[in-house]
Amino acid sequence: MKKLINDAEQVVVESLEGLALAHPDIIETHQEPLIVTRSAGTVKERGRVGLISGGGSGHEPLHAGFVGRGMLDAAVPGPVFTSPTPDPIMAATSFADQGAGVVYIVKNYTGDVLNFDTAAELAEMEDIEVEQVLVDDDVAVEDSTFTAGRRGVAGTVLVEKVAGASAERGDDLQTVARLARTAAKNVRSMGVALSACTVPHVGKPSFELGENEVECGVGIHGEPGCERIPMASADEITDILFDRVAQDLGLRAGESVVALVNGMGGTPSSELYIVYRRVAQRLAELGVEDIRPMVGNYVTSLEMRGVSVTLMRLDEELAELIDAPAHTIAWTRDSASS
Amino acid sequence: MKKLINDAEQVVVESLEGLALAHPDIIETHQEPLIVTRSAGTVKERGRVGLISGGGSGHEPLHAGFVGRGMLDAAVPGPVFTSPTPDPIMAATSFADQGAGVVYIVKNYTGDVLNFDTAAELAEMEDIEVEQVLVDDDVAVEDSTFTAGRRGVAGTVLVEKVAGASAERGDDLQTVARLARTAAKNVRSMGVALSACTVPHVGKPSFELGENEVECGVGIHGEPGCERIPMASADEITDILFDRVAQDLGLRAGESVVALVNGMGGTPSSELYIVYRRVAQRLAELGVEDIRPMVGNYVTSLEMRGVSVTLMRLDEELAELIDAPAHTIAWTRDSASS
Repeated sequence: MKKLINDAEQVVVESLEGLALAHPDIIETHQEPLIVTRSAGTVKERGRVGLISGGGSGHEPLHAGFVGRGMLDAAVPGPVFTSPTPDPIMAATSFADQGAGVVYIVKNYTGDVLNFDTAAELAEMEDIEVEQVLVDDDVAVEDSTFTAGRRGVAGTVLVEKVAGASAERGDDLQTVARLARTAAKNVRSMGVALSACTVPHVGKPSFELGENEVECGVGIHGEPGCERIPMASADEITDILFDRVAQDLGLRAGESVVALVNGMGGTPSSELYIVYRRVAQRLAELGVEDIRPMVGNYVTSLEMRGVSVTLMRLDEELAELIDAPAHTIAWTRDSASS
Repeated sequence: MKKLINDAEQVVVESLEGLALAHPDIIETHQEPLIVTRSAGTVKERGRVGLISGGGSGHEPLHAGFVGRGMLDAAVPGPVFTSPTPDPIMAATSFADQGAGVVYIVKNYTGDVLNFDTAAELAEMEDIEVEQVLVDDDVAVEDSTFTAGRRGVAGTVLVEKVAGASAERGDDLQTVARLARTAAKNVRSMGVALSACTVPHVGKPSFELGENEVECGVGIHGEPGCERIPMASADEITDILFDRVAQDLGLRAGESVVALVNGMGGTPSSELYIVYRRVAQRLAELGVEDIRPMVGNYVTSLEMRGVSVTLMRLDEELAELIDAPAHTIAWTRDSASS
């Protein structure tokens, strides 16, 4: 295993130290418990709804990269590919609470669901009202290694954007939660892996793929997908992903979408844009012309080579929230460009 | 070779098609000759100095990702790791010319130098005044596979930012060129590779590294560096890069810098931030406290795993230009955050 790390047990702490050193105007990292919050100058005012998310590390920039104005108040990073415990989730909740309640955005993995549930109970004991929103956008498999039901993957970023914009403009707890659930209900994703990743403290690749094989429907922890297929062209692979995602979403001509082509961490930008080119062609064929494109590394699996395709159906209200200003490490949109 | 491509010969064209489809508000892609320009709404007004750059593809987001307000007017992408010919450079020159001359930013590779020189001659024949600025920031080797003198690597992005901001605010040709040269003179870089990349039309890795080996001082085309060393910790590797770069730059206490930790394409974000953490520690030890941090994939080598460290010394004028607003695909800074 060759990695630019010092100690397999310190990867999360040291990389978050680096993150805080690089972006002091946006975020702060707190130790014991380990959470990432907005920096002092960007904390929400009293009376605004708080918004947090979290989960195992290794999916950077998710979630810490989406802390900041217009998105999350705090992120709770667990160990690599392992849910954070209720303690740091509760610390993030206390930070985010401005007296108007806190929304949790939770990716559907058994550990995350359990730990965010426990934290929500702790919060209620401290009179902080919590609403939980589950994201389960991965259409590849119904149940998987770590999940009852569908997994939460790259669509999570879009749910965080919608909820974040809603909370930032001053919507109340029920409204922020309702809009986040509407976003979650209208987003679907699926991915493929061309190579596995290596979890630092494990030290060997999480699975083996043959020289000509692709893991189709792979999870963001390297969980098996729906099928192992022979390597094919970018267009053929994109079509498999697009068909499954668009059909499951029931996408129709004339609708508006976010089209997110997400790199898994080790995929060159040029390949992501070749995939986006095909997604755009397929959307045009389907009669979908109002597209908000996003191409890049948003929800990764360490150095995995692969890609996922996410589509989110937008109504007018969701579109406005996706277009709203944001200032985070990995999603910045100023008011002029929206 | 597993890649998300359709045809090894069409990688550049298809990925640029995707780029244009994803960012129609920022750039346009033109075929025959193949160039990337600002989109219609963002073209500079008459009388402003034009700014172009280009070179072999495979280093995305360089250069097309830095076309837009506050940076380049056009980019000229050659085939993967191969210089563009004078024809497209001349087309980009004509696009960028608003009657006040055009600055070329050229990375120091024999092919690029030759082709940009020829294009400059063609431009002079059409009465377009051209100033060329050479970037040779790589301190690893003095001459290399494709270079007489030092290679131009990640520091190029910072030179493009300085020159772009100068041109955008209305400086004349000599001033834009002078500031770009000052930037180029004050920037140094060095990188390491943990794995090689595979050029699509070649189909096999550009070099072989042992399970425990690192190519120290690697070039952005996988050219050999100064030394092949055993794998070491992130801090040890960062120290090698930092020492060489800071010493060559003659960096001293109290100075201001841009500190760019650049991913080579296949490196997870968490590893880049672990490297940045060490760079920040070393700068603090040196007494350098005014730091503009940048961490991410700026000048890549396809899916290569590795990192480079770039330092640019800033005086007040360079700092102002680095902080100026920009709106490109890979470098966006609004006026509020500067």
